[in-house]
Amino acid sequence: MSKPRPISGFPEWTPAETLAEQTFLRKAVAVYESYGYTPLDTPAVELVQTLSAKGGVDKEIYALERLKEESRSDKPAELGLRFDLTVPLARYVALHYGSLNFPFKRYQIGKVWRGERPQEGRFREFYQADIDVIAEGNLPIHFDAEMPRVILEIFRRQKIKARVRLNNRKLLTSVYGELAIPQEKLGDVLREADKLEKVGAKALRGSLLEIGLSEQTSERVLTLADTRGSFEEIKSKLQTLDLVTANTEPGLAELESVARDLSDISSEEWSIDLGIVRGLDYYTGTIYETNLVDYPSIGSICSGGRYDDLASGFINKSLPGVGISIGVSRLISYLFKENALPVDRQCPSEILIMLPSEEKRGLCNEIAGRLREKGFNTEIYHQEQNMKKQLRYADRKGIPYMLFPFKYSSESPIVEVKNLASGEQVECPLDEWIRGGGH
Amino acid sequence: MSKPRPISGFPEWTPAETLAEQTFLRKAVAVYESYGYTPLDTPAVELVQTLSAKGGVDKEIYALERLKEESRSDKPAELGLRFDLTVPLARYVALHYGSLNFPFKRYQIGKVWRGERPQEGRFREFYQADIDVIAEGNLPIHFDAEMPRVILEIFRRQKIKARVRLNNRKLLTSVYGELAIPQEKLGDVLREADKLEKVGAKALRGSLLEIGLSEQTSERVLTLADTRGSFEEIKSKLQTLDLVTANTEPGLAELESVARDLSDISSEEWSIDLGIVRGLDYYTGTIYETNLVDYPSIGSICSGGRYDDLASGFINKSLPGVGISIGVSRLISYLFKENALPVDRQCPSEILIMLPSEEKRGLCNEIAGRLREKGFNTEIYHQEQNMKKQLRYADRKGIPYMLFPFKYSSESPIVEVKNLASGEQVECPLDEWIRGGGH
Repeated sequence: MSKPRPISGFPEWTPAETLAEQTFLRKAVAVYESYGYTPLDTPAVELVQTLSAKGGVDKEIYALERLKEESRSDKPAELGLRFDLTVPLARYVALHYGSLNFPFKRYQIGKVWRGERPQEGRFREFYQADIDVIAEGNLPIHFDAEMPRVILEIFRRQKIKARVRLNNRKLLTSVYGELAIPQEKLGDVLREADKLEKVGAKALRGSLLEIGLSEQTSERVLTLADTRGSFEEIKSKLQTLDLVTANTEPGLAELESVARDLSDISSEEWSIDLGIVRGLDYYTGTIYETNLVDYPSIGSICSGGRYDDLASGFINKSLPGVGISIGVSRLISYLFKENALPVDRQCPSEILIMLPSEEKRGLCNEIAGRLREKGFNTEIYHQEQNMKKQLRYADRKGIPYMLFPFKYSSESPIVEVKNLASGEQVECPLDEWIRGGGH
Repeated sequence: MSKPRPISGFPEWTPAETLAEQTFLRKAVAVYESYGYTPLDTPAVELVQTLSAKGGVDKEIYALERLKEESRSDKPAELGLRFDLTVPLARYVALHYGSLNFPFKRYQIGKVWRGERPQEGRFREFYQADIDVIAEGNLPIHFDAEMPRVILEIFRRQKIKARVRLNNRKLLTSVYGELAIPQEKLGDVLREADKLEKVGAKALRGSLLEIGLSEQTSERVLTLADTRGSFEEIKSKLQTLDLVTANTEPGLAELESVARDLSDISSEEWSIDLGIVRGLDYYTGTIYETNLVDYPSIGSICSGGRYDDLASGFINKSLPGVGISIGVSRLISYLFKENALPVDRQCPSEILIMLPSEEKRGLCNEIAGRLREKGFNTEIYHQEQNMKKQLRYADRKGIPYMLFPFKYSSESPIVEVKNLASGEQVECPLDEWIRGGGH
């Protein structure tokens, strides 16, 4: 006998938690599709060559080998598990380029794997939920505004307060350029500025001086990294700093377009934040991070941005894109810990039909069929047992209604239905109960 | 540049096919939940020790290794990809035994992997959709009837004619026992009898004689393997053959209970078939296979049965179960080839809102918000372009309706909506169009 044990980094939930996670994901799917994003489902497995085309080796790829292979170590692994959903998207778009309709709007919810060494709180298998729009040639700025719009709608439907912070990489590099920071130091400066929230102003000032910036320049970097608000506020701040110039204008114009498109959404749900940097070598325009208003400690749970060229590693076409990704497993496990996601159902059943005796099973099947047809999730108790045992089953599984078929016949379809929480019991024709929406 | 290529055995679909597959799976989920099955989602990765606990090594396990690991070959692999959803269920139930409610009814739709050598038509990654009921101690026979009931409902909702054939392993072994076939030959006989449909009566007779059965016994095996019909027909046939005895009675009684429970379902959708065997060392009672009436050549697309002890490899508890599994990827790819599954939508969008100019985007956002709130999947065209280009986009993506907001204002919400297939155009208040269900 091989006593089972959980494997560190590979999360799995209780049935009630799984149902809560599925409910979250279904709402996300409904929102994605309500904006016209189409589902994509690529294999979990890609060629190692594909996974490492853009330097993915750093992402701790899990390689696959057939367990029974005699000479495992002789040749390099050919296949590996994906570590994100962006590389598979790039490969998919390059491979099926001729048959796709652009702008191509897709969502993908799927697991990704990272072969990290086991470590507290680090997932080695987790869900991501991504949307991306890929265009041929020119990608309209409208889509940059659609990303936060979609994400905010998802969290609104979950009744969780989220706030998207956005910035623009083009603006950021041009503004920092205006500060006369040498090109070769720009990367380091951005990397450090990204840490402001974590390390605080004092530590950041120290780092900037260490990089070799003057005190005055360091102060201005600090001011910029701490600048947030509406587009008007950002622009007026930049004007004060003499940073609205011909060089910074293109990035500023993009930001203005996005802000204008989002003007119907409350400023409680989004703002511009010049402190957001999002890595260095990938994004080229709008960038996003998302925080939960009531749970600041989780940090950003959804981020992304615009990139100039999705599939340059695979195909000789200019395919700009913009995308945003929810780190589902990290988010969900955090929400579970904080009791911030309702984990209140043991199973999907809404009604348990009491089985008076095996002879009545045919009638119970008939009732169950009518209920299921109308969309009610319905179980029939599984064997002849006393009422107490049947009620206890409903109770343990948290099934809200119990239906008693004692008076039911096909000709006179009278049922008694008890709300197990309130104790309230009604007697009426089955169809009437169904029409009442289960009340 | 690393030119992408598909990997043999790892299927992926076009966006339209993906949408069709998702539609299929969502209907399956709705049916599973309508019977009270709760979703489970275990990691794709299990310990190799878990995967091989019940002889799973034969299933061509893919082992995982970190690509960057220096000494890959030195130690045996610890982690591998699951090859089915039953071993993970057994491991899950054993691990979380104390916190589960029994009978535990779960469904799981997920990918599984088999490290087979590349071969035409063989999938190395594919979806399975399983339901199982696990009990403590005694598993009521009712659940044996629920399996075909659920599966038939799924195919009815897909408008695909399916037929479940069922049998009982207890009956089968006792009946063959009555033929005085020596115990040590029973396995071989069952294995050969299972091939009747494939190889025909003549070849089977030859194999049986070769195993060492007498001509008379071989004929009776042939007769049995070719016996199908209602429970009454089966019983009467067994009586004719003098095979209703104290030994065969228990299996026959189980079959009768299942048949009685299914009596409301047309005999066009199910029958008993004594020719069904389903492997050898796993199932102990009811067994199932499922065929598609209009596509006999695909063979069984959904099979399963009752087993005495799910988790005996992991925990010292008696946990009998019954389950059935749809081989989703094989089924779907077959239905695609036969044009038997509608692949008619390029994306989920139902309405494209025409964008007259960027100035009107705010109004378009307002209209889109109201439509999405009511459940309509809605896109706004992404940039100022002439009408022809906007119509062509709707056409290429197969979006059925185009909405023109020329007359719309928040105070007077008049819209014009064109059905792009029929050319019919209506002008009315937005809410009226929504109330009409989009007509």
